Amino acid sequence: MKKVDYPGEVGALISNLKRLPGIGPRSAERIAVWLLRSRNGIINEVARSLLEAEERVVSCARCGFFATDEDGCSICRDESRPRDCLCIVEEATDILPLERTGAYRGQYHTLGGRLSPLDNVGPEDLNLNSLWTRLEEGELKEVILAVGSDVEGEATANYLAAFLEKYAVRITRLAQGLPAGGELETADDLTLFRAIEGRRPMGD
Amino acid sequence: MKKVDYPGEVGALISNLKRLPGIGPRSAERIAVWLLRSRNGIINEVARSLLEAEERVVSCARCGFFATDEDGCSICRDESRPRDCLCIVEEATDILPLERTGAYRGQYHTLGGRLSPLDNVGPEDLNLNSLWTRLEEGELKEVILAVGSDVEGEATANYLAAFLEKYAVRITRLAQGLPAGGELETADDLTLFRAIEGRRPMGD
Repeated sequence: MKKVDYPGEVGALISNLKRLPGIGPRSAERIAVWLLRSRNGIINEVARSLLEAEERVVSCARCGFFATDEDGCSICRDESRPRDCLCIVEEATDILPLERTGAYRGQYHTLGGRLSPLDNVGPEDLNLNSLWTRLEEGELKEVILAVGSDVEGEATANYLAAFLEKYAVRITRLAQGLPAGGELETADDLTLFRAIEGRRPMGD
Repeated sequence: MKKVDYPGEVGALISNLKRLPGIGPRSAERIAVWLLRSRNGIINEVARSLLEAEERVVSCARCGFFATDEDGCSICRDESRPRDCLCIVEEATDILPLERTGAYRGQYHTLGGRLSPLDNVGPEDLNLNSLWTRLEEGELKEVILAVGSDVEGEATANYLAAFLEKYAVRITRLAQGLPAGGELETADDLTLFRAIEGRRPMGD
């Protein structure tokens, strides 16, 4: 007896959906058959939004955030934002979470990765040239190293800090300590260590 | 200060991905930015497979399984499968799991739902006409009611069984009892009740 399976087009759709992050074989199958059963135009809408995003979305040449035209992203175009503070992030996707806090309103620079010798990622793999260009412009007063607090983030921060020393800018990095709502007993040793190290006066 | 957000095309993509089953707001955002970052043609491949599936995949006119041409699905076209046994399922997606067991190799019929008075789903909403046609053909010796074991499944099975009585066919339904690997202490009362009721001689 022949093994029964989905028609080739359904199989191809499932295979492609499986490639997406966080979508396992069962989710891919569920989404595919749900789409085929809905039949209310949603397949075309999903496909069209994919193609439009692919065609029109680019990286901002200046900061690396998502943009749709050659004039740069909405952040770089916003004249009301201070131009003397630069926040360096690993990925373009780190920018919106920082924006949502409302605690920062300067410029951004996306590295496009972080130093990781184990993965053969060195400084030459990061987007650094446009960073040096911006530093040479001399407008910057502060550079915030908003990289992760893991080993690769630390290495990246240290590398950048050493390089930035020759510029007359204040170099800061994100605070490390207890997460909001965090209890002491659930915090790991390193987090607690850094929370003590980075303690601040009450009311500061 | 203007609120920063993704460009419209990215936002539209995220909105559309959020409509898919099992994809929440964070997954949708993660998939969208992953797709935009990959840039290795995968967006086009996903979009194309969506459009091809939408364009070419149809329901088999005979059994309701997925098919791609007017000659019916691979199950109905398979001449080596017995034609005297019909397995009635609620949804086309129930067919492949049954096929994978290897325990059944007859024909199928998809109801396209199940009776559910609370959701205003009555017999007129199910795909029953082609079922009566197949019964009238007189080829069938057994009809398996492979519907769910919940209240709606029971109601559907009872409705079908009452209707099938006038045909000279054996009417069976899927066994209920302990799931494979199930321990007695984790089974609910109703499952245990049905496992006792449906007990079988050792070695049967």
